[in-house]
Amino acid sequence: MEDVVIRTLEKVELRDPILVEGLPGVGNVGKLAADYLREQLPAKPLATIYSKFFPPQVYVSEEGIIRLVSNDLHYWKSASTGTRDILVLGGDYQGISPEGQYEITQRVLDYCHDLGVREVFTLAGFAQGRVVEEPRVLGAATNAGQVEAMKKFGVIFSRNDPGGGLIGASGLFLGLGRLLGMEGVCLMGETSGYFVDPRSAEAVLKVLAKILSVDLDFTALEAKAHEIDRIAQKIHEAESRSSESPLPSGPTPRDDLGYIG
Amino acid sequence: MEDVVIRTLEKVELRDPILVEGLPGVGNVGKLAADYLREQLPAKPLATIYSKFFPPQVYVSEEGIIRLVSNDLHYWKSASTGTRDILVLGGDYQGISPEGQYEITQRVLDYCHDLGVREVFTLAGFAQGRVVEEPRVLGAATNAGQVEAMKKFGVIFSRNDPGGGLIGASGLFLGLGRLLGMEGVCLMGETSGYFVDPRSAEAVLKVLAKILSVDLDFTALEAKAHEIDRIAQKIHEAESRSSESPLPSGPTPRDDLGYIG
Amino acid sequence: MEDVVIRTLEKVELRDPILVEGLPGVGNVGKLAADYLREQLPAKPLATIYSKFFPPQVYVSEEGIIRLVSNDLHYWKSASTGTRDILVLGGDYQGISPEGQYEITQRVLDYCHDLGVREVFTLAGFAQGRVVEEPRVLGAATNAGQVEAMKKFGVIFSRNDPGGGLIGASGLFLGLGRLLGMEGVCLMGETSGYFVDPRSAEAVLKVLAKILSVDLDFTALEAKAHEIDRIAQKIHEAESRSSESPLPSGPTPRDDLGYIG
Amino acid sequence: MEDVVIRTLEKVELRDPILVEGLPGVGNVGKLAADYLREQLPAKPLATIYSKFFPPQVYVSEEGIIRLVSNDLHYWKSASTGTRDILVLGGDYQGISPEGQYEITQRVLDYCHDLGVREVFTLAGFAQGRVVEEPRVLGAATNAGQVEAMKKFGVIFSRNDPGGGLIGASGLFLGLGRLLGMEGVCLMGETSGYFVDPRSAEAVLKVLAKILSVDLDFTALEAKAHEIDRIAQKIHEAESRSSESPLPSGPTPRDDLGYIG
Repeated sequence: MEDVVIRTLEKVELRDPILVEGLPGVGNVGKLAADYLREQLPAKPLATIYSKFFPPQVYVSEEGIIRLVSNDLHYWKSASTGTRDILVLGGDYQGISPEGQYEITQRVLDYCHDLGVREVFTLAGFAQGRVVEEPRVLGAATNAGQVEAMKKFGVIFSRNDPGGGLIGASGLFLGLGRLLGMEGVCLMGETSGYFVDPRSAEAVLKVLAKILSVDLDFTALEAKAHEIDRIAQKIHEAESRSSESPLPSGPTPRDDLGYIG
Repeated sequence: MEDVVIRTLEKVELRDPILVEGLPGVGNVGKLAADYLREQLPAKPLATIYSKFFPPQVYVSEEGIIRLVSNDLHYWKSASTGTRDILVLGGDYQGISPEGQYEITQRVLDYCHDLGVREVFTLAGFAQGRVVEEPRVLGAATNAGQVEAMKKFGVIFSRNDPGGGLIGASGLFLGLGRLLGMEGVCLMGETSGYFVDPRSAEAVLKVLAKILSVDLDFTALEAKAHEIDRIAQKIHEAESRSSESPLPSGPTPRDDLGYIG
Repeated sequence: MEDVVIRTLEKVELRDPILVEGLPGVGNVGKLAADYLREQLPAKPLATIYSKFFPPQVYVSEEGIIRLVSNDLHYWKSASTGTRDILVLGGDYQGISPEGQYEITQRVLDYCHDLGVREVFTLAGFAQGRVVEEPRVLGAATNAGQVEAMKKFGVIFSRNDPGGGLIGASGLFLGLGRLLGMEGVCLMGETSGYFVDPRSAEAVLKVLAKILSVDLDFTALEAKAHEIDRIAQKIHEAESRSSESPLPSGPTPRDDLGYIG
Repeated sequence: MEDVVIRTLEKVELRDPILVEGLPGVGNVGKLAADYLREQLPAKPLATIYSKFFPPQVYVSEEGIIRLVSNDLHYWKSASTGTRDILVLGGDYQGISPEGQYEITQRVLDYCHDLGVREVFTLAGFAQGRVVEEPRVLGAATNAGQVEAMKKFGVIFSRNDPGGGLIGASGLFLGLGRLLGMEGVCLMGETSGYFVDPRSAEAVLKVLAKILSVDLDFTALEAKAHEIDRIAQKIHEAESRSSESPLPSGPTPRDDLGYIG
């Protein structure tokens, strides 16, 4: 079979479209943000991406219907002339080998390039290894102009973070995108790295919404964040009761990972 | 060499054939069921499948004759006009890498599509992590119509099982099959996951025989099930005598595996 | 680069040549035997085989000269009309991945097929997991006629050994060779599996020499066997002195490996 | 995507150019030496090498600008007619799989061959597993003439080192280079294997500068070596104070690695 199979579901003409990528990774921040953006715009199905570099797996719905694991592109056409169209890339997995990461990213970028994409935003989490009360949004970009532009939206460019660079789709979409002449920005929400983190996703998405000039209702995402807070609180209380150890009980972040997203 | 080599042993014309897949996996349920079906029909050799994604291994028979590991297609032509022909896929191994799984499955499906296959049944075990006295048959399917049809044959569609989806050939034959326009069903026999489980295979095959309207003699499979029961019983007794521990002594199922078959 | 690169060093016409394969594996029996055969015939260099499925490594000679790891084909032209020509395949490594094993074996077989090879002998060790005083030579073959023919040379065909089949080049050359219409035999010298075993290689080679009707001087191989015996004896004595444990001190053979050669 | 992508930044004509390779490896000796050579000549950017066999990673500069991981070729044109031009290969990573090592090395060699390269120097560290006060420079070469020529520059050719050969790019550039008709030498600076070792890089580069007849200012490299010395000294003192154990406290070199560079 082909390494990567892209099935187009609908032929569309897009106006100067922007690609927004958010796949599973640290704290699932990128995926949560991209999925929420897709639902809120709302964006329509454009293409499904299958690959032998994903796990050999199908998901089964509650009704018993199977679905092969995939990535998916959705599109949103702006009603106003001042706003650009948006493509959202989400999915079940990143490629499960380094080669697979490159192959899938390259093919999706080629496909998006044909659709007119010249600018990419990638969304991800940045693991701090400690509880983060008010997650900041860190950035990395393909050129100095975009760094300056992003600072105006409150994006933090830190001298030292992310120190080891970006590993995974969020970095690769920018790195390979540049070779195709695309410019781009990675927006990273701070997160502990211990939990799925909708609060960090919300922080990322609020910045992105301003950048893209789209209005989003964050009620559902905030509800999800409160839900996770409650769960974390219960775990914390249970641990306090059952243990007399003064040591922190969360898993220690793996230093060597740096950043994957 | 080609990634996957399919050697056709006989040219046949088949009438609306159904593909039944059963390869090694959890409790070896799928393989036991498919092998037994092949013997009981009986089905004749149609094609042998070799691949560099299988282990680099030959088996040696009791007479000292070697045989390269493979998958194999057998066919059965129905005598009555009301029944469809059947293809049975069995073999020594599933592909040993994720990419290999995709490549082999795709090539076999393409081959079967050329033979007229438009419907696939995949057979597998579903590990419950506990002894299962009366194995139920769980299902997953490619469309809602087949879910309803299967329920009439006693197949259980559970909201939560299999939670993580299906990993391996039994899922992939359905997932990739759909991209070729094939519909299909996965039948999963409940099993502990600790033993090769002919009783679970029997449960699966009894449902499949009804669906396919074929008569099968289950005597030999039941004998095998009794044999395994006796062995399990002896192990249990030996453990009871030698140990005073009240803890269960079987291996703990690995939660992260979910389902492989 | 090509997956496998074969550099022909000399163009030769061979008379009904037999391929003898012996690569590193259990007890290094196959490699020892093939290398010794090559030296004793003596066989001349015919082709060098490089592959990206070997380790990315060069060896350095005592003089400081590097050499890329490879497999190598040597040829021997028989002086008498009654004896067939011989090709000997040896080398530094087997392919280091399952796919690599298949790719290299297939390419070498294709190359040898073009040279007229229709019969293959593969040489290997069979790990018994215990000290073997007088190594027997076990066999496996591609057809019943060869099984019978080999028995006359003292080759043992055991109902149960090798139970898990043959893993690696010695099996694959027969398995893939059959698909090219080649017949073949694997000769396995019993060995403990703990040491490099020239005595087992000698047993294998004595049988092979009779089969091929070639005269070999075994003096040097026997000297090597005595050398290993002396080393093993010294280790044994040192262990007896330093330890009061009555337990065997050698490494335990890994049961799951079965056979690799 | 292509396995290896080479982007030419400038078209140049070179006079009998020599390739100098230095990539990350033991003590980072090869990379330190090649990077320093590039800065001191100074050499100009010629081509950037991307590959799916590198990690799927981008680096982020202190200004927040991303850069896809790569290898890089720089060139230096000699002003005097008596000296040859030089190509320097450096980069972030070696290929991360054996196959990747072969593919990248082959492609870079083909590219350099087209530029007229017929001679290669590879730079590496040789781990001694103990502190090395005055690092010697060990050598390996593609022919006896070069071994003799190198001895005159003080390069040591040891009977036993490196015993297991050279693993990685420094060996492979010579081994695959020979198949393209290139001759070459590997220069290995002795190093403990515990630290990044600019002193060993300096030793290697001093030899290379003499061989290539280029003048280099070693001030900055010596400063870096002193810096590492100070850090090592502090660690040593801290360990002496906090521990009463007389045992060496550095990590034990892994014997099985032999040499990677």
